[in-house]
Amino acid sequence: MIDFPYLVGITRRTPSRILFLVVDGIGGMPHPATGKSELETARIPNLDRLAQHSATGLITPVAPGIAPGSGPGHLALFGYDPLKYLIGRGVLEALGSDVALAPGDVAARGNFCTLTPDGLVADRRAGRVHSETSGKLCHQLNRVSVPGARIEVHPGKEHRFTLVLRGEGLSEEVSDTDPSHDGVAPLAAKALTPAAQKTAALVNAFVGAAHRTLRGQEQANGVLLRGLSKVPALPPMGHAYKLHPAAIAAYPMYRGLAHVLGMTVLPTGPSFQDEVDTLQQHFTSHDFFYLHYKPADAAGEDGDFDEKVRALETLDGFIPALLDLKPDVLVVTGDHATPAVLAAHSWHPVPLLIHAASTQGDGVPRFTERAFANGSLGRLPSVGTMLLVLAHAGKLSKFGP
Amino acid sequence: MIDFPYLVGITRRTPSRILFLVVDGIGGMPHPATGKSELETARIPNLDRLAQHSATGLITPVAPGIAPGSGPGHLALFGYDPLKYLIGRGVLEALGSDVALAPGDVAARGNFCTLTPDGLVADRRAGRVHSETSGKLCHQLNRVSVPGARIEVHPGKEHRFTLVLRGEGLSEEVSDTDPSHDGVAPLAAKALTPAAQKTAALVNAFVGAAHRTLRGQEQANGVLLRGLSKVPALPPMGHAYKLHPAAIAAYPMYRGLAHVLGMTVLPTGPSFQDEVDTLQQHFTSHDFFYLHYKPADAAGEDGDFDEKVRALETLDGFIPALLDLKPDVLVVTGDHATPAVLAAHSWHPVPLLIHAASTQGDGVPRFTERAFANGSLGRLPSVGTMLLVLAHAGKLSKFGP
Repeated sequence: MIDFPYLVGITRRTPSRILFLVVDGIGGMPHPATGKSELETARIPNLDRLAQHSATGLITPVAPGIAPGSGPGHLALFGYDPLKYLIGRGVLEALGSDVALAPGDVAARGNFCTLTPDGLVADRRAGRVHSETSGKLCHQLNRVSVPGARIEVHPGKEHRFTLVLRGEGLSEEVSDTDPSHDGVAPLAAKALTPAAQKTAALVNAFVGAAHRTLRGQEQANGVLLRGLSKVPALPPMGHAYKLHPAAIAAYPMYRGLAHVLGMTVLPTGPSFQDEVDTLQQHFTSHDFFYLHYKPADAAGEDGDFDEKVRALETLDGFIPALLDLKPDVLVVTGDHATPAVLAAHSWHPVPLLIHAASTQGDGVPRFTERAFANGSLGRLPSVGTMLLVLAHAGKLSKFGP
Repeated sequence: MIDFPYLVGITRRTPSRILFLVVDGIGGMPHPATGKSELETARIPNLDRLAQHSATGLITPVAPGIAPGSGPGHLALFGYDPLKYLIGRGVLEALGSDVALAPGDVAARGNFCTLTPDGLVADRRAGRVHSETSGKLCHQLNRVSVPGARIEVHPGKEHRFTLVLRGEGLSEEVSDTDPSHDGVAPLAAKALTPAAQKTAALVNAFVGAAHRTLRGQEQANGVLLRGLSKVPALPPMGHAYKLHPAAIAAYPMYRGLAHVLGMTVLPTGPSFQDEVDTLQQHFTSHDFFYLHYKPADAAGEDGDFDEKVRALETLDGFIPALLDLKPDVLVVTGDHATPAVLAAHSWHPVPLLIHAASTQGDGVPRFTERAFANGSLGRLPSVGTMLLVLAHAGKLSKFGP
């Protein structure tokens, strides 16, 4: 935990290297037809062998019953209390669009919507307008100017965009304009604190100008904003743990998260093979690598059990290459479970594997949820993982005399 | 946990129904002669079969080593931190006597006692005076009037009664008059804060009048009061979780607890069969049912191992009727363990079973303490149960973007 009291007194720099592989959505649930989870179904001999020579257990991302988003899931893994350190939806959207945010900038998640002639929301997603069209509209909205801040509108997929306000004295304490259901008018942005009045006025001025700009559009003639937020001031991970951490992730959002945590984000390509190549090239330059594997979560979210099994089997093929780098500690875990049978993030405990010279093996035969329930690490909150990993890397001294 | 931050943002109303069966005192300890606990001894085929197709684990009501009363045990199950939300002894006594308390009322646990001619306590329980006698004396005490509050004296079993003060500006910050041992005089009630001076004076005036009324009684010629308390202001369960919760309990205290938590208390009869009938009649009217089963605890408290085994076997016979209602989530757990060999509530972890479409089975063969130690839910604090149950009912959205 980054908030562990006296952390600075017990962390120490060592030459040891930690490779922290986050398999997004790694936990699952049994398929009703077979009674076996995705991990239990997959042929993953390398992960199974690794499990036999590692310390294993199950971690709870936020609290029992709570299905976390990617933000809280990752924060917890890196030791940040996910109930204390919050990342707003606007910021996460910006991170996911590779939009750099500076301290003080305010970001919002935007939707193009369809408004009736009376100004009511007819469709909050503007009929999922084509990305090509919405991209052009974003270009037009970028010409909107409001006094007191610079405006940026970054296109996302289909009806989505990110609004960024840059300027002095901006506040995130502003309510959404998105009414969250159809049939009513967009809401006026309201200041939730007196200091936010300027920002609320700016947001309303932008919305007014945007609606004038979009007048005449058939589908996308309105905008809805939600989740206005600033990049939170988080204690930098490298400083707190005395590490030189680097992040390798093909997806922008995870690079953005790593950036917010103070990691060095290494440029990489769109595939996991690209990520592993990047890891190999930079392996001597850092002592901590966050390596992100997305396909397991993507298949889980799609409800595609077989595809999730394949994603795990593909990952398994990369394990020997990771071991060849001889990291002092190899961690394999996830930010949350994404059972294909739920087609969503879930609240289930997530497998955690720590492989190091100081782990021997728990007699756990396979890399599965049920097997790890009997591992030596037991059940622990995800936020406890990082100190355990530092300990196995020899990077923690004794606490107390 | 009712205090989970951001709960309001993730709870959602759905048509799914939760049946939450609290088997009072369900956990036990091995009988010295057989090495088997009450659950291990009982023939409970329906519960065993249910365990094979559910998620199972063990919950800790308050903290390791702490044996809870019924108040903290139940509060924790419904997600209220039992160290934060306290229910005073006076209030619990009133709830257990079916005495309705309004906000602002102060209740105290009363004992009839025997005083010596010198005014010292000779017997704090007045020789466990017959209920018939003490009931008549309560009737007399109800005629006592003190200026500034209405007085009610409700009879309990043997030497017990409940005193209720109703009026404006009453305080619970008043010390006990019960010295908690014999051979000394009853204590004067003292105001623990300046605002409590009026209430302390009222209490002392009542005690004086009561002693005058009881003069001449052989056994019960005095009264002792303790645990002055008001109904605590708890966040209503239905509001916090977005539920329409109902309670079905044959014993008044559990109905009272449910009332304090904001549940609708459904009238029912004195037996568990009556409770099940009530459940069947109202099953479509609520989305959460707290169903209380008392006999296991009663037998445990009596130290009657065989009777507790029988109580569990009797309960087992009702499981098919509960499943026939097709609740979306069926929970079977307890507020605390009551091992017959201890003849008391104990600190042991309590079995927790959650049955839902999203649970498959943990490979747990039986409904026992030892089997559940290997269940997929692991060990968790009782206060974490409710969010897990809501998750399985599909009533929780993702936390965080």
